[in-house]
Amino acid sequence: MQEHDDIDILVSEVGPRDGLQSIKSIMPTAAKKAWIAAQAAAGVREIEVCSFVPAKLLPQMADAAEIVRYARTIPGLTVLALVPNFKGAQNAIEAGAHKIALPLSASETHSKANLRKTHDEVIDEVRRIAELLRSLPAGERPGLEGNVATAFGCTLEGPVPERKVVELARRLMEAGVDEVGLSDTTGYANPTQLRRLIKLVRAEVGHDRLSSVHLHNTRGLGLANALAALEEGITTLDSSLGGLGGCPYAPGASGNIVTEDLVFMLDAMGLRTGIDIEKLLAVRQILVDALPGEALYGFTPEAGLPKGYARGGWGVRAAA
Amino acid sequence: MQEHDDIDILVSEVGPRDGLQSIKSIMPTAAKKAWIAAQAAAGVREIEVCSFVPAKLLPQMADAAEIVRYARTIPGLTVLALVPNFKGAQNAIEAGAHKIALPLSASETHSKANLRKTHDEVIDEVRRIAELLRSLPAGERPGLEGNVATAFGCTLEGPVPERKVVELARRLMEAGVDEVGLSDTTGYANPTQLRRLIKLVRAEVGHDRLSSVHLHNTRGLGLANALAALEEGITTLDSSLGGLGGCPYAPGASGNIVTEDLVFMLDAMGLRTGIDIEKLLAVRQILVDALPGEALYGFTPEAGLPKGYARGGWGVRAAA
Repeated sequence: MQEHDDIDILVSEVGPRDGLQSIKSIMPTAAKKAWIAAQAAAGVREIEVCSFVPAKLLPQMADAAEIVRYARTIPGLTVLALVPNFKGAQNAIEAGAHKIALPLSASETHSKANLRKTHDEVIDEVRRIAELLRSLPAGERPGLEGNVATAFGCTLEGPVPERKVVELARRLMEAGVDEVGLSDTTGYANPTQLRRLIKLVRAEVGHDRLSSVHLHNTRGLGLANALAALEEGITTLDSSLGGLGGCPYAPGASGNIVTEDLVFMLDAMGLRTGIDIEKLLAVRQILVDALPGEALYGFTPEAGLPKGYARGGWGVRAAA
Repeated sequence: MQEHDDIDILVSEVGPRDGLQSIKSIMPTAAKKAWIAAQAAAGVREIEVCSFVPAKLLPQMADAAEIVRYARTIPGLTVLALVPNFKGAQNAIEAGAHKIALPLSASETHSKANLRKTHDEVIDEVRRIAELLRSLPAGERPGLEGNVATAFGCTLEGPVPERKVVELARRLMEAGVDEVGLSDTTGYANPTQLRRLIKLVRAEVGHDRLSSVHLHNTRGLGLANALAALEEGITTLDSSLGGLGGCPYAPGASGNIVTEDLVFMLDAMGLRTGIDIEKLLAVRQILVDALPGEALYGFTPEAGLPKGYARGGWGVRAAA
């Protein structure tokens, strides 16, 4: 993993994993590599490049190991891989991922539907993965993050009790993860709820053990939630280029928050992301070309940057 | 004007004015009336129902006086009309508007393009309108709001100096408006800039003289900006049902912030708007039927409410 002392906010691109696993098209390996390389060249420091799941279940991820190996050759890039279980973690470690993330759904109904595992079974996998990681030499040991998914409500169960989310975050830490994250898998979160839950989880696991949130824009609140998270001191925000994938509903109801709009917001606010927004906007063309017919989202790519926009803070310049 | 002691945030619907004047279709008068009535019945307390401009220029607004007279018959509804000049104000007063709003573009280039008037000329109109209003009996005197438009940047001029916005807000107050508003006409604003400008303008004209902002979602930051405004103590937010109109760019780059998404956010945060969100979502069908082929925006209408959503705060219930 890389240190990022020169940026304020780490934008963690999840499109190659969350985006590509949610659409029907299978992106060719070469296009995935071009996407990852171009986005890293635009200044993105962390990319969740794949998920280590059986190709039978998710053919979109059949090239996971090759993608990790390729991404590892890009200087300065933290290569993140999602894994559903111990077996996936073994494969991710073997391929060379810098960091491994594992989802634990607060809704047990969703956990059983998604990973075919109860909470106890998922925690057992985490414990085994943590043991495996501890057996590795310190310099070759990937980081391990546990993400509490459906943390703000579930499409199957409805409301999820906050004490359940807090308890699962604690159990993930006890099982050996380095840090926890909160995922609004269903796009149910609102700014007030998000703030409260960040505070509650931090009170349980420690302030510095929760630094990232994964937000969706399903009801249009994605960037408002991102702002609320920033104000709570969250420093890592997941997003997906073109809001790719994660669209369980009608067109317009996108999934992940859109990287382009998020970076525009952060950049305009004068926050340092390390990302060149004009280069970032140009990466979208790779998706357009490689995924014909797939819906892409985002407002900034359509509208363009404001006239006279200055990188590093439109507001700052307008104040002159 | 109505008092609203039973709500926290006043959602001011601007679709019948800002929405309808920005699209090519002309909505039949009967449909406008049905829309206004249905939205008032859903609990919306204030609607900007029209603009008093020559029908030659904006045939969409040819029935402005009839619409105001009709809207005045709806109990509890504050009827707002936009006017570009003294003549428009005379017509709005005659028709019976509760409140008159006049835009003053911070970008003088935009002011000349929009109203064909310099700053000095617009201020002169405001002064004459204020004099006219003072000549009316107190009980029949509409309120007067001056909106600083393109306050966050202009598509023609680019960055707009903040001192210019502050100065124009002061001049509007001196010319006799009751209050000022800030309009992000171009969708350029970001949360940091918005907060700073709200503070600067309030420092000049008084805290209670700036209570409303008019936001666009052109770059996807609309609700993040709305959240920032709320946190600064703004209590009136303009929005447009279905994000209707105001789309100078490609599809997807909507104009005004979407009433449905805004109300969902406020309602989910536990803020009282007086609006029944399910009834509000149903009003959209009137637009679908009356404006065939026009693009409507919004994520909540597509995705629907969360499973088990409880009005008055999803987060509150989820905390149980």
